[in-house]
Order: sequence, then structure tokens, then C-alpha cells
Amino acid sequence: MADGGAQVRNKDGIAAALGVLKQQFGERFQTGQAICEQHGHTTTWIENQMPDGVVFARSTAEVAQIVKVCAAHQVPVIAFGTGTSLEGHVNAPLGGISIDLSQMDKVLEVNAGDLDCRVQPGVTREALNTHLRDQGLFFPIDPGANASIGGMTATRASGTNAVRYGTMKDNVINVEAVMADGSIIRTARRAKKTSAGYDLTRLMVGSEGTLGIITEITLRLQGIPEAMSAARCSFPSVEAAAKTVMAVIQYGVPVARIELLDSAMVGAVNAYSKLDLPVSPMLLLEFHGSDAGVAEQAETFGMLAEEQGAMGYTATKTLEERNKLWQARHDAYWAMMTIRPGCDAVASDVCVPISRLAEALTLAEAKAAEMRVVAPTVSHAGDGNFHATVLVNMADADEVTRAKGFISWLNDMAIGMEGTCTGEHGIGQGKRPYLERELGPETLAVMGLIKKALDPANIMNPGKILSQ
Amino acid sequence: MADGGAQVRNKDGIAAALGVLKQQFGERFQTGQAICEQHGHTTTWIENQMPDGVVFARSTAEVAQIVKVCAAHQVPVIAFGTGTSLEGHVNAPLGGISIDLSQMDKVLEVNAGDLDCRVQPGVTREALNTHLRDQGLFFPIDPGANASIGGMTATRASGTNAVRYGTMKDNVINVEAVMADGSIIRTARRAKKTSAGYDLTRLMVGSEGTLGIITEITLRLQGIPEAMSAARCSFPSVEAAAKTVMAVIQYGVPVARIELLDSAMVGAVNAYSKLDLPVSPMLLLEFHGSDAGVAEQAETFGMLAEEQGAMGYTATKTLEERNKLWQARHDAYWAMMTIRPGCDAVASDVCVPISRLAEALTLAEAKAAEMRVVAPTVSHAGDGNFHATVLVNMADADEVTRAKGFISWLNDMAIGMEGTCTGEHGIGQGKRPYLERELGPETLAVMGLIKKALDPANIMNPGKILSQ
Repeated sequence: MADGGAQVRNKDGIAAALGVLKQQFGERFQTGQAICEQHGHTTTWIENQMPDGVVFARSTAEVAQIVKVCAAHQVPVIAFGTGTSLEGHVNAPLGGISIDLSQMDKVLEVNAGDLDCRVQPGVTREALNTHLRDQGLFFPIDPGANASIGGMTATRASGTNAVRYGTMKDNVINVEAVMADGSIIRTARRAKKTSAGYDLTRLMVGSEGTLGIITEITLRLQGIPEAMSAARCSFPSVEAAAKTVMAVIQYGVPVARIELLDSAMVGAVNAYSKLDLPVSPMLLLEFHGSDAGVAEQAETFGMLAEEQGAMGYTATKTLEERNKLWQARHDAYWAMMTIRPGCDAVASDVCVPISRLAEALTLAEAKAAEMRVVAPTVSHAGDGNFHATVLVNMADADEVTRAKGFISWLNDMAIGMEGTCTGEHGIGQGKRPYLERELGPETLAVMGLIKKALDPANIMNPGKILSQ
Repeated sequence: MADGGAQVRNKDGIAAALGVLKQQFGERFQTGQAICEQHGHTTTWIENQMPDGVVFARSTAEVAQIVKVCAAHQVPVIAFGTGTSLEGHVNAPLGGISIDLSQMDKVLEVNAGDLDCRVQPGVTREALNTHLRDQGLFFPIDPGANASIGGMTATRASGTNAVRYGTMKDNVINVEAVMADGSIIRTARRAKKTSAGYDLTRLMVGSEGTLGIITEITLRLQGIPEAMSAARCSFPSVEAAAKTVMAVIQYGVPVARIELLDSAMVGAVNAYSKLDLPVSPMLLLEFHGSDAGVAEQAETFGMLAEEQGAMGYTATKTLEERNKLWQARHDAYWAMMTIRPGCDAVASDVCVPISRLAEALTLAEAKAAEMRVVAPTVSHAGDGNFHATVLVNMADADEVTRAKGFISWLNDMAIGMEGTCTGEHGIGQGKRPYLERELGPETLAVMGLIKKALDPANIMNPGKILSQ
């Protein structure tokens, strides 16, 4: 554990840093209540903990300058992208300075011949794909939200098509980062693979701003596939759906997406989107490849699904029909919110070996019923990753307690199945209690040693991942 | 930089450790000249630096016990798999204890449903694939040598089919490792993806035994594809061949292997294997997939190759014919050795962005001629990774100087093209001079801080990757 770091709010240091930053950044440094609240805001139920000021940085040099000011005064510094993280990643429990990177939003270069590009951290996923489209390229990682590439890198994001294209860990070639002492590093060069020393790229990916602030990212890109098609079908049970997913993966069908909605989620979507889907577990798929390739994938999938008793198999290639087919998935969040109007949605995130997915989903459904918690699930099934989103009336203290109990149980169940408490959302503040249970004190100690070595004063996003 | 570590041979500590280990391990602890030499032996031209003793460990607990003895006496400890590393990775510049892991050779579990397995570090690549075959599974990483999985993990190995299946970084799910204080960590759990804290898995992959000793590895597996086919064709120039490779990658053809042999290598193979191939650059490919899929891949490749003036395109599906087609590649090493009988072969390893591959190979050929060095090349072309193997008469001091000069030039050229001095062999001792040129002092400083934090006494494979 990083035991050398500050544990309490450094009032004097913060006051001094605020003065210096005001002088250096003028209008681009803000301390107003609304802006500070917005930069502590997260989409979790974790209490908002505001920073003391927000700097809108425009260059790596400026980020380094801000970090140096914070280092000199031992003041926390928290990177902010779009604020769509889910576990309190941008909260400022000890106050400090939020560095808003949204103005560092340039695509710096695209190397079409190498299928890579270099971007600033504030570029959003959608903006990048808009930029790339004319060149026949795309960046495949899709966590749902229109997150910034910097934030996605920092949380090791993934999402619906990780089953084919991997996660941010697999799609970042190198990063430039400002470290706790203000030094600027580049973790690797632009070659597609490297064995040159410690894999600092992967160390920074998923470090949640606790080791340094990512100021540039070189990403792998993909050519837009010649053909895409989509398919959907329903199953008599979660087990049948999950068995189909396992078969698909074992068979080596290179599905681009394979999502599993449970009955509750399908019911909600029916009501919200005025659809008439069978209220039973449903798989939604997307296939990428050549014309013949996607046809073959869809056919193989159909065969494997049929063996598990699939119903209502539908497949299509046209964009319009594909969007219609996937509407259930796109609408899932908003549909779910209508189940209990006025409630808060608390998105959990666990990941288990695929062979345990059916069991995990079945147990979760039973446990939710037992605990009287409403928690429909959607799974990135090809990765064994699923979200049980708990719909909670925050005004009902007993319900809040039960919801917390359910989430705690869910994490422990996943860990007990050789899985993880987070497949893609990250640890932040919310998952810290589970990290040690998952990996053990010896592994946590190694993480703590690295944190302490790279950030001895514990100024980089303190209180995230590790307990201090 | 790790400035706290020992820089000189700790004679007293070594003597004390030898005594303790003899007592604890009896016949499984050896100090004979032949065994010690064999454990310092590497396939590089780097001088053999023997350890003082070799322990044949049989369990993680024993590895921890040995590391604790070495830690207590501040004695270097070097993990040894099969000794096929190429940059002096297993040398003992300050003496110390080699831990031979070849007896830790068990496949501990295979989870066919999850396409993963857990193995001890001494399991070799071939032994693993023999074990898996009956279950329709295989482990795709193939660095050429029948290396141990532990060694492949420690050096971030890859090889011919990384273009499709990735490198060890992409295929290790977690490792168990003994750290410098003898503590045992597990870096992650068995889920296919995770965002749970720092990516210690990727930190250990490629750390070359300098941060800890890997004692178990959980690997991703692949289903043996329904169909495989192979293809071969020649090109009027390296540029035409490299342009074809770029087109293949951009087109998204999921080739399993795409290897480029230069004219010199083809000439050597003709002589050695009594073949009659056109003496010009040649691409060799392997396709994996469904029957229809591999046919389509071969067809698309043929079309792209034809556009670049390919000659003598041959494709086949039968195992026997495939082996015959690939004979040129399989024989390349031995064929090359016959170019200059009695010479040593010094394998270099650089990797550049694919768009620079043609230029890099062309420049390398010209430079070799200019420096009067014989250095045929073979490329894992889909990754931009190539080996110029210098054939050196070690008795000719001037030639040795020229060969060293060529290799130095080659590394700098790759770095100058935004590439790396090592795509897959690792840094070891031989590539250390290039690492700082490649990544800069700030990045090296971060690596040094991590090394010092996890191994303050610098006992874990000292003198590798970093300069101390």
C-alpha cells in the first residue's frame, strides 16, 4: 500500500495551488460551484466529491505545468474526460484540481497504411469515428457512452464488440503521459508489436489516472468491413442462450457482437419500444466480414442456436433492418428506467469465465428475487461480462440497503467463480472493497509499491483503485 | 534507474547461499562446471556468464524458498526455461543462482469451455500442443524454437502467427509469480477480460525475470480451425511483396501467417533444400478458417498479390502439400547456415510500422552490401517485424566489427522509423544500448522506478533490460 501519501485534505496547499493556477490560466481556470460539481459528478450513486478548481488544458505542456504546480503544493490532480465513468473515478475525496481535457480534442495523425492513429485524450469515440469514416477506417471499441478516448484508455474500457476486437488493452499502441513529477513519457513507439522493456503502455491503460495523466494515445484501427449483418433470436432459458454463446466461441465464429438480454430486460424493451418480442432470454448478434463470410457466420450461428432451442431467428444485412433488429439493445437503458419511474439505475459490472455465465445469471436472478431487488441484466456474453442494473428508490433506506447487499453479493459471486468484480468499468472508488478479495493482499501490495514508486506524494487521483 | 542494486559480485553472499541451497535441495542443486555453463549458455554471440549454481525446482513453493534464500544473502536469481532466448537473458553477469524450471512441466488444467488452460512454466510449446490436440484445441504462439511457456511469457514472445493471434501479451490471462521478497502473487483471475486495477499480467509478460519469477501461466487457447491452407508466391521486388502485405492487412484478410523471405534467403533455401524457387522475394502464407473461409482468403490474397506482379502463385490445402510449400521457411535457418559454413549466425530483431517495411528491408540490403556483411532477412511481414541474420566469421576481428556496426545501424534505423529495436526477442543484455534511444530517459526512469520498487536489492536477473 502507498503509505506515504496524504490522507487528509491539504487546505494550505490547495489554496496556494489555486492562486498559482488562477494566475497562469486566467479564464481557463474555474472555481465556481456549478463547474466544480459537474467535474465531481459521476453517473454512479457514489456521493459527489467536488474538486476545488477545474483547469481546461490545451496541450501536454499545460498538463505538465498543472501537475508541477500540484506536485509543488502536494495537491491532488484528477483527469476529466467526459465524466461518464461509473465508479466515482473523477471524484475528489481530498479536493484538488480537476484537469478537464475536453479541449484537447484533436486527431493528430491517421496512418491509414498502418491502421493506426494518434489522438489527444479529449477526442470522443464518436468524433474519432466520424473523422475516420471517409478513409474507410473505424475504431471498434464501443462502451456505450460517447466517452473520451483518454477516459476509455484510463479505465480499460471495452463494450459490445470486445468479443471480436478486444478491449482498450488490445487497441492502444502507446500513450504519452504526464507523470506525478511533471515529466512526460511515451510508453512505446508505433510498431505493431514490441518486446522493448516493461509494458508501460498496458500499465497506463486501466490505471485510472492514479499513475499519470494520459495526454496522447496511439490507437489501432480497423478497416470498415465489406459487409455487416445482424441476427436476433430468443431462447427458452438463460442456460440455452449461454450454451449457444459458448458454442459460438468454441466454434471460432468471429462474431463482432453477441449480447444477451434477460427476460426482464426484454419485457422492458417491449413496453418501451412497442415491440412484441418473446419475453424470454434473447441474443443479439452482429457479424463483420466479407459478403460470403458474414453469410457463413450467420448460418453457423443459426445452426448452433437451433441446437439449443432458439426461437424466432431473424437475420438481416440492410442497415435499416439491422438498426431495427438492434433497437432492443440500443433502447435497453431507457426501457429499463421505465420499469420503476423515478428510480436510480445502479449499473454493476462483473465478468466470469464463459462456462460459468449461465450459472451466474441464473443465480443472480434468483438472488435478486430473494432480496426483492429489481435488476435486469444485459451481458456482453462472448466475454462472460454482464451488467445487472439495480433500479433503486433512493428515498427508501431499506431498499438501498438491499440493493447494496445485492451488488456486494454479485461481486463476491463473480470472484468466487474465478471471475472479476469489473470487466470494463474499472475500480474507481466503488469497487475498491472487492479488489483485495479478488486478487489477495500480496497482489495489492505490489500495486501499492508501484503506485508509491511513481507517485510518492499520492497526488494522482488519490483514493481510486487503492484505498489511499 | 535502479541505483540501489548491487553492481559487483557478492562473493560472501553467494558462498552462503550455495551452502544453504545444497543443504535444502541436495542432488537437485548442482554447481558443476558443465551444468553452470549450460545455464549461462545462450544462442547469442554474447559471452557466456555462468551462474554459480543451478537448482532444479519442482514447485512454486520451492521457487519461493530459493528466492528467499537469495534475498537473505542478496544473491542474483535467474529463471531458466529452455535457454533459447537470444539476447543473453539467462546470463549471470554477477553470478548467482539459476532456477531451472524444466521440471515444472505440468499442464495443470484445461478448460475447454472457456478456451483456456493453466500450465507450469517448464511446459514447452510443443508439449502443450501435443497435450491439447485431442481436445481440438491449440496454443497459437510459435516463436520457432520449442521454448518453454514460462520463457515465452517472460520475453513477450510471438513469431510467425502473431499477425492473426497476437503475441504472448494477448494470450496470457494471468500469471502466478514469485516476487523478490519471496511473496507469491496471482496477477488476475480467469475471466476473459478485466478492469480490476493495474495490469500486472502485462507488466510481468516481457519483464524477463527482472521483476519476479513466473511459476504458473493461464493461457488463452484456440479451437483447431476446420480448414487450413497455404500459399506461396514470388515478387519482382521487396517493395512489391511488402505492398501486398499492406494490402492484405488493410483489406482485413485474417491471414494466420504471412512471411517474407528475401532473395538471399530464397537462394540459400534453393541450394539447401534442392528447390527451384525464383531467386526473388517470396511470400509464404497460411490461412485458417472454415472451408469456404480459407478458400476466400486465398482468393483475395491471390488477387492482391497479382496486382503487385506476383509470380508462381501456388496454393494448397492438403497437409503434405502445405508442409512442402512451407519447406522453404522451415529450412531457412539451416539453409542460411550453409551460405558461409563455419560461421556464427547472429539473429537480429527489429519491428517497424508496416508502411515502412519495404523501405527498411531495402535499406538494410544496401547497407549490408556496403558494409560487406552477409545478412539475409526473413520477416513476420504482417507485423512489420523482421530478422536480418548476420553470418559472421568470429575469427575475423574486422568482420565482427562490421557485423556489430551493421546491427547497431539496423536498430537505429528501425527506431528512426518509429519502430522498435525488438519486436519479439526482448532486451536482455544485447539490446540495452538501444532501449534508451528508443524510449528516452524519462520512460527508462519510470521502468527503473518500478524495478527498484519491486526489487530494491536488484537480485532478480540483474543487468537485463535496464543497465543495472
